[in-house]
Amino acid sequence: MPVSRNSLPLTVGVLGGMGPDATVDFMSKVIAATPAGSDQEHVHMLVDHNPHVPDRTRAILGEGGEPGPVLAAMAKQLEQAGADIIVMPCNTAHAFQADIEAALAVPFVSIIDETVEACRGNSAVGLLATRGCLVSGIYQTALRAAGIETIVPDEDEVAELASLIATIKTGDFSPGVGTSMKQLAEGLTSRGAQAVIAGCTEIPLVLDQSMLDAPLISSTDILAEATVAYALGKQDLNTRP
Amino acid sequence: MPVSRNSLPLTVGVLGGMGPDATVDFMSKVIAATPAGSDQEHVHMLVDHNPHVPDRTRAILGEGGEPGPVLAAMAKQLEQAGADIIVMPCNTAHAFQADIEAALAVPFVSIIDETVEACRGNSAVGLLATRGCLVSGIYQTALRAAGIETIVPDEDEVAELASLIATIKTGDFSPGVGTSMKQLAEGLTSRGAQAVIAGCTEIPLVLDQSMLDAPLISSTDILAEATVAYALGKQDLNTRP
Repeated sequence: MPVSRNSLPLTVGVLGGMGPDATVDFMSKVIAATPAGSDQEHVHMLVDHNPHVPDRTRAILGEGGEPGPVLAAMAKQLEQAGADIIVMPCNTAHAFQADIEAALAVPFVSIIDETVEACRGNSAVGLLATRGCLVSGIYQTALRAAGIETIVPDEDEVAELASLIATIKTGDFSPGVGTSMKQLAEGLTSRGAQAVIAGCTEIPLVLDQSMLDAPLISSTDILAEATVAYALGKQDLNTRP
Repeated sequence: MPVSRNSLPLTVGVLGGMGPDATVDFMSKVIAATPAGSDQEHVHMLVDHNPHVPDRTRAILGEGGEPGPVLAAMAKQLEQAGADIIVMPCNTAHAFQADIEAALAVPFVSIIDETVEACRGNSAVGLLATRGCLVSGIYQTALRAAGIETIVPDEDEVAELASLIATIKTGDFSPGVGTSMKQLAEGLTSRGAQAVIAGCTEIPLVLDQSMLDAPLISSTDILAEATVAYALGKQDLNTRP
């Protein structure tokens, strides 16, 4: 049953399923970030866990169907069902953020903008992301606007990263996958990155801060914490990055 | 974007948030039970993760607001959004199943009926569940109809179980909580239960088969597997228990 619009706590609409385990990880982190002693104190989430959204990277590379209209329709339906804000725990899909926002009257909280905000204080950060996300330039543009240089993986590293993300999407979170991911992160720090963005929500499923010397900026964790802060009214939506 | 009604795979509506971690555990198990090599092969779930549904046990004991109309409205909204079947990973809330089904044109897959089906072959099973679930008699009635005796916790055990479930709902899954849950399960097997039903979706968050000699029948796992089987058309909805 929808809570009345704009009363706190806000109802959160989640564009999910991209990928499935990443959405569940995001929901877990929202739950863990909520100070609650009973079910009733937790945040109400309306989740469209839709793994059938056309592949984002393929669309960005001009090889597949368009996710934009699908995401816009999903977002509109969540708004109609009572969502007060919309979030999307998939970085690459933010290349289609304009399509989503054009369909919405309620605010969209961007994982890119929140993550870039968390990067302030650094002059250069490394970016682990899908090929589509890297090609779209969404992180690089937002980081540049914040005065931060982006250190990106080279072509071989991009190919390896894509292969690791595909492996994670099959449900394989084994230590070897994490070790390979850690090596990719260290490649970026060896080239001057002061911190590394886990800019794909599959990455934190195998890589955590304990595995790296440099700060790991998990886009999933940042979006989860921002979502709870906005939903509980601890952070003003009008001042979001 | 809703897939067309009744085409496979089916879109699954999930009445969730009762409790939050249990819903996420259920979603994880649906994902793990789906044979898939890419996002697009996974099951589309529309999840109303609503922790604000009035407390089920309190309602059954006559101490709190009515969850029935809230659950019915949530289910109806999921159906309107495109759900082909509805599931609810909360055993106690099935005391209000009639309210939900009255609001729906699409099938409701009962965690109670699926779990009881998995108990066949036993003459007596133990039941770990909330006070509300035990008082409602939903499991005992369905087990009796299947010719199976229910071994229930005594008053002290029910109180301890309620306390453990409340602890789990705060996000505490520590080994001590699991050990106490294991002892309650063993109390039931010592009184003749051949198997033990984890008849509350919080229980599998701390208790798994490796901790018990007797078979543990996890209602969460059974509902997740049934959901995938129905969604992929591997099991006929018309033959559901």
